[in-house]
This record gives sequence, C-alpha cells and structure tokens, in this order.
Amino acid sequence: MQALPPGSTIGILGGGQLARMLALAAARLGLNSHIFAPEQDSPAFQVAAARTVANYRDETALAAFAAQVQAVTYEFENVPVEAVQFLERLVPVRPGSKALGVAQDRLKEKSLACELGAMTAEFRAVNSLGELQNAVSEIGLPAVLKTTRMGYDGKGQAKIMAADEVDGAWAAMKNQASILESFVNFEREISVICARGVDGHFAAYEPTENVHRNHILHTSTVPARIEPEIAIEAVYVAQRMAEALDYVGVMGVEFFVGADVLYVNEIAPRVHNSGHWTMDACLISQFEQHMRAVAGWPLGSTARHSDVVMTNLLGDEAANWQVLAAQPDVGLHLYGKAEARPGRKMGHFNKLRPRKG
Amino acid sequence: MQALPPGSTIGILGGGQLARMLALAAARLGLNSHIFAPEQDSPAFQVAAARTVANYRDETALAAFAAQVQAVTYEFENVPVEAVQFLERLVPVRPGSKALGVAQDRLKEKSLACELGAMTAEFRAVNSLGELQNAVSEIGLPAVLKTTRMGYDGKGQAKIMAADEVDGAWAAMKNQASILESFVNFEREISVICARGVDGHFAAYEPTENVHRNHILHTSTVPARIEPEIAIEAVYVAQRMAEALDYVGVMGVEFFVGADVLYVNEIAPRVHNSGHWTMDACLISQFEQHMRAVAGWPLGSTARHSDVVMTNLLGDEAANWQVLAAQPDVGLHLYGKAEARPGRKMGHFNKLRPRKG
Repeated sequence: MQALPPGSTIGILGGGQLARMLALAAARLGLNSHIFAPEQDSPAFQVAAARTVANYRDETALAAFAAQVQAVTYEFENVPVEAVQFLERLVPVRPGSKALGVAQDRLKEKSLACELGAMTAEFRAVNSLGELQNAVSEIGLPAVLKTTRMGYDGKGQAKIMAADEVDGAWAAMKNQASILESFVNFEREISVICARGVDGHFAAYEPTENVHRNHILHTSTVPARIEPEIAIEAVYVAQRMAEALDYVGVMGVEFFVGADVLYVNEIAPRVHNSGHWTMDACLISQFEQHMRAVAGWPLGSTARHSDVVMTNLLGDEAANWQVLAAQPDVGLHLYGKAEARPGRKMGHFNKLRPRKG
Repeated sequence: MQALPPGSTIGILGGGQLARMLALAAARLGLNSHIFAPEQDSPAFQVAAARTVANYRDETALAAFAAQVQAVTYEFENVPVEAVQFLERLVPVRPGSKALGVAQDRLKEKSLACELGAMTAEFRAVNSLGELQNAVSEIGLPAVLKTTRMGYDGKGQAKIMAADEVDGAWAAMKNQASILESFVNFEREISVICARGVDGHFAAYEPTENVHRNHILHTSTVPARIEPEIAIEAVYVAQRMAEALDYVGVMGVEFFVGADVLYVNEIAPRVHNSGHWTMDACLISQFEQHMRAVAGWPLGSTARHSDVVMTNLLGDEAANWQVLAAQPDVGLHLYGKAEARPGRKMGHFNKLRPRKG
C-alpha cells in the first residue's frame, strides 16, 4: 500500500462542517479535497479545490467524481451505503462499506459490541407492535425505542416510561425496523475518538466527557472525570471494534459510564463532534488524523498539550462571536453557514487551560 | 469601526503559501477569502472561496475584485503600491499603502527606525558610483550594497569586502537606487512577529531566533537565546514602528543582536516565514491574527503552549514528507506546489517540545 503523495485529491461525500474541517486539515498536508454534496451552498465548498453538486444516488456523477480523486471518505454515516459500494469498485473508500453498514444499523452496532465482549444496554430487535410488547416485557421499563437506521441528534427516538406509551412509541417509528433499549443508569457520557491506519496501526485520543442538551452535544471536556481503568477499557473496546470492522480513518465511540461499568452506546464512522477539542489542544487534530489515515499516511500523535472544554454554538449562540473572539484562552471555529436556524450547529469554541500534571 | 461579521470576504493580493495559510485561517473564523493573483496555478486557489487571475496593474480586474470583498490585504510587499492605492479608494486595505511604501524601500525603512530611536547598521543612500565611493569612505568596509526596492531572500545584494569590489557591486545594482549598509557584528538574528488592530491594540509573539542558509530562512527557534531585556526592547521597537506606520495587521521585524545591542534589519508588512511556528505552538497563529486585524476583530492571544523549532523545506527537502509525518512531535505543513524547484519553499515543519518553565 502506497501512501498518496502531497498533491493527491481526496474525495469527501458530504459538504457540511465536518467536510469543511476535513478539507482544511487536508490542505495543511498539501492534499486537495473534492467535495461531493447535493446542496449548492455547502459550507465545505468555500475551502475545497473542487466540488460536485449532485445527489448521492447519481451514479454518473459518482463515477465522474471517482475518476478525479485518489481516495474517498465521507463526513456522515447517513450517506447511502449503495453510493459507497458503487465508489468502492472504482477507488479506495475509507472507511469502507462494511464499517458504514454496521454504523448505520443500531442492531448490528450493538450486536458487534456484545460479540467483542463489551457491555451495552439490554436491547431487542423490534419490527412490529407485538415484538415491541414482548421486548418490553423482557427488558422492562423505562426503555427507549429507536429506529435502527438514520437516527442522529435524538431524531427517530421515543422514550417509553409506562406501559400506556407502548402503542404511541411504535406508531412514532412509522413501521421502520427498530430497536428497544433498556435505560442505562449512568453517571456520565464519554467518547473515544480513535483512528486506524491502512497498515492497521491504531491510535486513540484521551476519552472525552460529554454533556448533551436536547439530544445534541453541548460540551466535551478533557480530561474526563473517570478512573484510569475506565479510560483504558474504553480505548481497548474502541480498538477491538475498529479491528473487527477493518476500519480505516477516525471513528468515534460513545459510552455510558455507570458505577464503574462501561456501556457502548454507539459508533460514528467518521470524525466526531466530541473530537473538536483536538483542533486546539493537540498538535494533530482528529481531522488531520482522518485525512492521514484515508491517504495511507502514518497516523499522527494523539497527545494533548492542554486541558480543554469544547462548547457547541447552536443557532443564535454564534451571534456571540465577538465576545468569544476577545477571550484570550478561546479558540473559535465558525462554519460559514449563512442561516442560523434554531439548533443548527454554527460553530464551536475550545477553552484551553494549561495541562495539569 | 464595525468588525466584519462571519460570512464576509477578505480579498488577498498574492496566491502563494502565505495567502494559502491566510485563507485557511480565515476559514476557521467563518470568513471567506478571494485570492487575486496573476499565476493560474497559485497554491492559495485550492483553498479559497473565490479567485481572480489577473495582473496587479489591471485596474478593471482590481475594481471588480474590490466590489466582491469587504476588505483587502496582501501576502507580500512587492505588490505594486499603485495597486494598493487604487484599491484603497474602493475598500479598506490593511495594512495600508503608507506601511507598504515604507516597507518597500530600505532607505525609508531604516530612516524610520532611526527616527524612532532604534539602532540600525550605518547606511547611506547610493544613486551613483561616485556616491558609492563616498559612502564606502564614510562607513568603511566590509559593507553590503542593496537595491532599496524589490529585494528579498538575498536577491539584489552585493557584498563589498575590499575596495576593488566597489565598481563591480555598483554594476550589479544596474543603476537602481541603492543603499550601502555597514556590516553589523552580530551574534544572532531574531525577529518579532507582532500585530496591531484597527482599534490600535498591539500584541506581539515572543521573539524568534532565526538561522539563514544562502540568505533564505532555515530555522526559527522559540525561545530565542537572548536576554529578557533584549526581548522587551525588540517588542517595544516593533510597537513604535507599527504605531508610526498606523499599521493594521501582522508585521514582522527582523533584528541583529550583537553584544547586547539590537539593530533593526528590516520590516515585512505581512505575515512572516519566521512566524510559522505560531501555527502549532500557539492557540492563535500569526495567520489568524492577521485576518482578525484585517477584519477589525479583537486580536487573539499571542501566548505559546510549547517550545518549538520551525524548519523550512526547500526544493527536494519536501520529498521527505513521509519520514517527517511519522515523527510524533512534528507538525508538517505542505504548500500544494507541484514543482520542487531548487530553493523553492515547499513547506515547513514545527518540532514541538513541552514548554520549559
């Protein structure tokens, strides 16, 4: 396997802020980016050498795109797996369709974690109201019903606190294949941002402690308030999952931590919002790390030089940019989105502190 | 003075690596870049939202460019001052033509330093062989003759070690207005990378110790091996010069340090090669700092979290990218230039060490 030399072009499916930050990181290494996205005003277009505006199911456009790039990656897991499979026949796609297929399906994802000996919340596949009723009687309430596919930021989910909510929850799934998960009694949420190279080398950043608001990430803090053995176990679980998926690139693994027990929540086959702190607290950010892996380069160091709290800026919160820009210990990142819709991720900031110890 | 909001477009004259790194830094803040450069294959085009390929003396193109941007800056001091003056009538240009005019002329530059009470090498204006002979008899030999304008990286210079070299040195200047400078007996070279905001706020990074090879910067090291009082004086000289020039943006000031005496060598009205270490050793790089100043934003912190040595990669040296990328404490930056001509700046790398004390 040859590393792609500087001057090569990496294709990126998706044109949002993750693609934008990937393209910026690629440029640092002398790599060009070609963004493939359906939206004319994609934020990543502003910083990329080339663009294709087309639907992910447009095979003519996909083929033309593949002919102009030396490798392909994607910024989000809801890209159609068929598009990735189509591209894989033409050009290396990293991570590949196997990892994407598992990450797109909560049932496959949790089953893999269990096979690898990791803990998850109890779960059951649910494809009908009858199956849901059986699942509820087996794992008890409260529980949460989720579509197995295409959910993110709390979309496609329904909590079931009492038996009289079962029918409504199933109706909310609109007959989509679903998964019932028991509530986990957890103290905090953490994530591991890790990377695996084409050569199988693995590297993980230190686990991050995450706080969500309305199902959307609010802050990520490093160091996390967890015992060292929990951190080590989390990284080891991430490594086993990356190896089982024959993964290439950066992957995020979310965990719940409760009473010294670590539960795998989900994996993201891409750079992850809870890794944005690496942009200012590490020499090599998760975005550069991902592009290194995709291009077949050596992975970079995951060491951090500072303690850090990352805070997302949603909707109008980004209007505060002048105040944030004036703070001496703040790294501000804005995504170039014109319209500040409520809940839309407009940017983030990293507040640094000198590293303790 | 209103700060330009995120989503604004900054025009940059010049499309080389400095413009490229400026555009990348602007994108981090949600600012777009429009690159104006004569060369079709300018490295900055790969990362910018918009481009104009035209000559700097094409006023139609300059006017169209001005109409599409909210402020203009430039990546190098050899842009025609007439182009900047033309643009200034249409849109804010930062730094302005006053600073550019002084920085383009070694005589004005050194005269300003002297007026402000700073030391320089002894110098005389030279416009003829007779003036050169007089100047040599006044300031002695060895000395160096330089064109007052358009010199960089050792171009347009001739050393005069002995009296029989005077005629040849003058001939090498090809009748251009020149300046004779006495040799300064110095121990080391340092530079100060500083910034001044639209509001007059001033901030400087810690002085950098520089080593040149063949008149081209080879390494920049921070901390520099200088006494604290020399560092303080250097920053203070830079501040007085920035204020005298009503400067807005990042400026580099080069000094010679000899036996506890600080001599101003020259100023660069732009981001500076000896400030590339700030990309990995500081939260806010010189490139972001410049774009903040140009956009009327608050200046960022100039604190550094690490010790660092920056090394330029010239010509074939960049072929070593895979070895450099594998070093855990190295931040590698490649400029996207296709052809590795001898002496051409292809990239640089920053080698970090934990900060001592």
